[in-house]
Amino acid sequence: MSLSKKAFLPALAGVAGVALLAGPAQAAVSEETAFVFNTFSFLVTGFLVMFMAAGFAMLESGLVRSKNTATILLKNIALYAIAGIMFYLIGYSLMYVDVSGYIGSFSFLYNPSEAETALINADEATEEMVAAVVGNGYSVMSDWFFQMVFVAATASIVSGTLAERIKLWPFLIFTVVLTGVLYPITGSWQWGGGWLAEMGFSDFAGSTLVHSVGGWAALAGAIVLGPRIGKYGKDGKVKAIPGHNIPLAALGVFILWLGWFGFNPGSTTAGITDIAMIFVNTNMAAAAGAVAAMLTSWFIFKKPEIGMSLNGALAGLVGITAGCANVSPTSSILIGLIAGVLVVLSVMFFDRIKIDDPVGAVSVHGVCGAWGTLAAGLFNMEGATAAIVGVQIQGIIAAFIWSFGVAFILFKLIDMTIGLRVTEEEEMIGVDISEHGGHAYNDFQVSK
Amino acid sequence: MSLSKKAFLPALAGVAGVALLAGPAQAAVSEETAFVFNTFSFLVTGFLVMFMAAGFAMLESGLVRSKNTATILLKNIALYAIAGIMFYLIGYSLMYVDVSGYIGSFSFLYNPSEAETALINADEATEEMVAAVVGNGYSVMSDWFFQMVFVAATASIVSGTLAERIKLWPFLIFTVVLTGVLYPITGSWQWGGGWLAEMGFSDFAGSTLVHSVGGWAALAGAIVLGPRIGKYGKDGKVKAIPGHNIPLAALGVFILWLGWFGFNPGSTTAGITDIAMIFVNTNMAAAAGAVAAMLTSWFIFKKPEIGMSLNGALAGLVGITAGCANVSPTSSILIGLIAGVLVVLSVMFFDRIKIDDPVGAVSVHGVCGAWGTLAAGLFNMEGATAAIVGVQIQGIIAAFIWSFGVAFILFKLIDMTIGLRVTEEEEMIGVDISEHGGHAYNDFQVSK
Amino acid sequence: MSLSKKAFLPALAGVAGVALLAGPAQAAVSEETAFVFNTFSFLVTGFLVMFMAAGFAMLESGLVRSKNTATILLKNIALYAIAGIMFYLIGYSLMYVDVSGYIGSFSFLYNPSEAETALINADEATEEMVAAVVGNGYSVMSDWFFQMVFVAATASIVSGTLAERIKLWPFLIFTVVLTGVLYPITGSWQWGGGWLAEMGFSDFAGSTLVHSVGGWAALAGAIVLGPRIGKYGKDGKVKAIPGHNIPLAALGVFILWLGWFGFNPGSTTAGITDIAMIFVNTNMAAAAGAVAAMLTSWFIFKKPEIGMSLNGALAGLVGITAGCANVSPTSSILIGLIAGVLVVLSVMFFDRIKIDDPVGAVSVHGVCGAWGTLAAGLFNMEGATAAIVGVQIQGIIAAFIWSFGVAFILFKLIDMTIGLRVTEEEEMIGVDISEHGGHAYNDFQVSK
Repeated sequence: MSLSKKAFLPALAGVAGVALLAGPAQAAVSEETAFVFNTFSFLVTGFLVMFMAAGFAMLESGLVRSKNTATILLKNIALYAIAGIMFYLIGYSLMYVDVSGYIGSFSFLYNPSEAETALINADEATEEMVAAVVGNGYSVMSDWFFQMVFVAATASIVSGTLAERIKLWPFLIFTVVLTGVLYPITGSWQWGGGWLAEMGFSDFAGSTLVHSVGGWAALAGAIVLGPRIGKYGKDGKVKAIPGHNIPLAALGVFILWLGWFGFNPGSTTAGITDIAMIFVNTNMAAAAGAVAAMLTSWFIFKKPEIGMSLNGALAGLVGITAGCANVSPTSSILIGLIAGVLVVLSVMFFDRIKIDDPVGAVSVHGVCGAWGTLAAGLFNMEGATAAIVGVQIQGIIAAFIWSFGVAFILFKLIDMTIGLRVTEEEEMIGVDISEHGGHAYNDFQVSK
Repeated sequence: MSLSKKAFLPALAGVAGVALLAGPAQAAVSEETAFVFNTFSFLVTGFLVMFMAAGFAMLESGLVRSKNTATILLKNIALYAIAGIMFYLIGYSLMYVDVSGYIGSFSFLYNPSEAETALINADEATEEMVAAVVGNGYSVMSDWFFQMVFVAATASIVSGTLAERIKLWPFLIFTVVLTGVLYPITGSWQWGGGWLAEMGFSDFAGSTLVHSVGGWAALAGAIVLGPRIGKYGKDGKVKAIPGHNIPLAALGVFILWLGWFGFNPGSTTAGITDIAMIFVNTNMAAAAGAVAAMLTSWFIFKKPEIGMSLNGALAGLVGITAGCANVSPTSSILIGLIAGVLVVLSVMFFDRIKIDDPVGAVSVHGVCGAWGTLAAGLFNMEGATAAIVGVQIQGIIAAFIWSFGVAFILFKLIDMTIGLRVTEEEEMIGVDISEHGGHAYNDFQVSK
Repeated sequence: MSLSKKAFLPALAGVAGVALLAGPAQAAVSEETAFVFNTFSFLVTGFLVMFMAAGFAMLESGLVRSKNTATILLKNIALYAIAGIMFYLIGYSLMYVDVSGYIGSFSFLYNPSEAETALINADEATEEMVAAVVGNGYSVMSDWFFQMVFVAATASIVSGTLAERIKLWPFLIFTVVLTGVLYPITGSWQWGGGWLAEMGFSDFAGSTLVHSVGGWAALAGAIVLGPRIGKYGKDGKVKAIPGHNIPLAALGVFILWLGWFGFNPGSTTAGITDIAMIFVNTNMAAAAGAVAAMLTSWFIFKKPEIGMSLNGALAGLVGITAGCANVSPTSSILIGLIAGVLVVLSVMFFDRIKIDDPVGAVSVHGVCGAWGTLAAGLFNMEGATAAIVGVQIQGIIAAFIWSFGVAFILFKLIDMTIGLRVTEEEEMIGVDISEHGGHAYNDFQVSK
């Protein structure tokens, strides 16, 4: 088993039987059956990942204040829509088509192959066309759909960290660049078969490629934007600004947990037994993360904290994302436990250095994404070597430099031109009034 | 490829291999494998559509005022339950059994065939029975389940438009007729193989048969009921009555978007590559609709409106429903963009003529359903002809006349007998008190 | 067809073709195709059941008061996490490995077989290993995942009944025992092939094994804890303590209804036609339960009650769980109707005898679970006999004695040692302050 399956997906073309039952059993499942199953599997796991957009929307709206809720919801629906359109326009090609090591190709509009289009119009397909489509192992459109929903997840990560103070237009512009260019380029390095894949970097479902990339971009934005008014007192004290609707946040985490059963196993066509193990590993890491963060917060704050527990589950999920296909269930529990502790400490650390992250996304996705990538090397079932761990660290650092660096420059540019942040007055009233023009809760008495 | 696949489904019986891989490849997948996959596919897409009941419930409860929330939720759970029971009692037979052109047969209770029941009791099934069941291409009960969840969607559309002023009993009576008789009859015209199907009408997953039928019935109800008190001032001014819980409405739209990945692709057993393309088309149209409505509302109202953006996503989804299997991804974006603009203008139009629709369902489902049906002709991949477009227009008009006409008469009859609308005093206090006897938010300070 | 399929699952090993198409058709689907489909089916139905954790969390948080909301959410995320970990550590072995009639084996940590692990590391698998894995009919890890999500459901049932007054630590301790020991032991009696299975007891998906076991444990806890302050007046009057957020409760029920399409059909690998019928039966019973409870509450209280209607849907679902694979759709409606009436009467009964159950879980899961188990005998398609019904009653009673008895002793022990209930003052302020340290709704004006 390779440390990096996804990068080798193109190599599976023509041996679709492998996709169902790796090894000697492959001959028993026909190419056509494998094609049908692989395609269906991409679509089912894809709709689960799509639903993560709802999870992020609920999580983020629950953790901000009520005066900024309608705007964060608008951002979440807009970013999911924009991600799909940008990935269709240029993103997919930049990430997957003729990757030259560091970037794919610029070609406008993604469209299915002529053969696949002909197969849909069944009466026009020749036998060669059918053979070409089936020989690919899965419908390219099902793969496109699956890759597209991943892009949106990255953008969702950023929106939480920048909530309650960023203007709407600049956020949407950043989303266009992130989903159309920034994410596809790091993606091409590994899943497109570029230089990280060639080095043997292992990131099965994207601890680095999705979560850290999103987390570090969010970090850059948080630094350029600065903290929310009142978050850090002049005496150095950190003021808690609690979320306004904890049930929404909890719902969001449950939806994300569900979505991860698409996010992690969907990244493989490498065998149904692998998929089953990935389900188990994903769940164990999340469970361990939730328990670890609950106990850590109990220990530190004397009472268990629901927000930390929720982020602990997410930390476990992010942590297992890179290694989910390469580690044992017992290792998954360990990875989740460490992620659950780490996320609490990380949230406290960023508050200490006065980087304001209303939802803790930098800690959950950036920090625990890096941890998960490292863990995929340390706990891999074939044994960790210095070389394996070294490559993992290189990938972690490369993704940080690229994502944080480009995002920082981009946010600075936006800030210096059209401006990034709402005015002080607008922030006090709430961006729902200034940016959006309406309240989220029109009948309720809410505090300002 | 036909413009109208669903109508031809019965014709596929006996050649189930076609259902997985259309064209020359069919021989490679055994009839039994096809049977298993088709059945499983109906069930998976069916549970996604079932979950749309939750989406409608959240959307509608979020967009009404808090004083009417418990009642709209009760209606939504009741209508989903009633839809299933009525479709079981008489609806399915009226829609699918021995359709004579304009209506199916009256037979009480739907039940699986003797052969399929025998197969379940495996030891009783003869080889002929097994061959008959498998030869059908899918379990008839999986198809029944899938068709049943569609009926509920139609009823959900109506409940939103009539919210905040209709009495509970009359609404439930209307639901019984809509799901048991009204919807199955138009359904029989096309999906049952009736006169519309014979004309070559194209409505793959129900822009007209589900959405317009629901939307026009809702329009009839809104006209008979009249607007909510205070909606239209004596000076002709339109008073906005904003929804009380935008996060719920946003959650509802995300759930509906997810459910559409069952709604659109589930309507086919015509090939897994078709299913993949339908996923892509469905998503692109929704994304385009959301962006278009956001920008349109930004342009018209000077600020982007979350409610319009949410309805824009739904408009795109409704718009692509008829043509999802017959148009390219690029056309899907165009269809969605136009739907997104259209829904904003339509909402403004109905307010102009003082037809009060608290959730905008007539615009989303009625108007954009008609647009989607037209677009399925205009953008179809084999090329639009005047004849094709003409048939589409005939279908749109026929569905309008039937659905609006019968619903109007029915609402009038109810109004003149047991009464349709709550009293003025009850409406001011909120129907949760008069119709239901409890608040939705017992601990919160809410405005009246 | 046996009355008890799940117990016979191990017997299917080696004849995987049976799993897809029972009876004479089995030869047509290869063992490998069956293996892939069965495994995928376990995972899809498993993720639906996993999402029930979100359903329970929303239902319970909607039905308590706002001052106890953050804590009930924390409990729900914690219990799902703990259930997975405990089932991994000891539960699965106690339930399924070498069951000696009354209990399985004590072995620490569940792990996939050597052969399956080798298959994942494809290059290490021998042909014999592949044959062994495939011959099993499904990946053991997919089965493990499916069984694990069931455990969490049981724990969720308990948390609702004990809400608003139990301390957090004692609840978590009880959850550890329930998910690690208590539930697996009754499970071993039937699904592990123990004494109930040998008697011919029928409980397809767990009306007794999951729902009654949870419901009776909850009943024991409610008795030991006593009612909430103010629930029963000194004059004997029952004071309604309505839930604080009905949309959340409704969302929870819709999610649970969705999840049941995994819960019931996932329990079989006995034929795809069976799965289709189970979908239909599950939906019809839920629909009938919702309507019956709505009408019953309308009749008794003069107004339809949303809480009762929601619980009616759940009652129908619990009621059909035991018999979903053995009764006809028409019988399913009858079973659901009776469950819907029963749940209203049962809720009133427990209030009459002053056992306080904030969410009605004892009635929904305990009482209707018993009803469903009885109904699986009475309505089974092969005909009810006194012997069959007698065995069902024995199983119902045995589960009650074990679950109620052990839970009662355990709650008493906890109460006498570390204490079970918060102080009177803490209960008045709300456990969110005393147990958790934060509000669920920080911006809203809420009543105490």
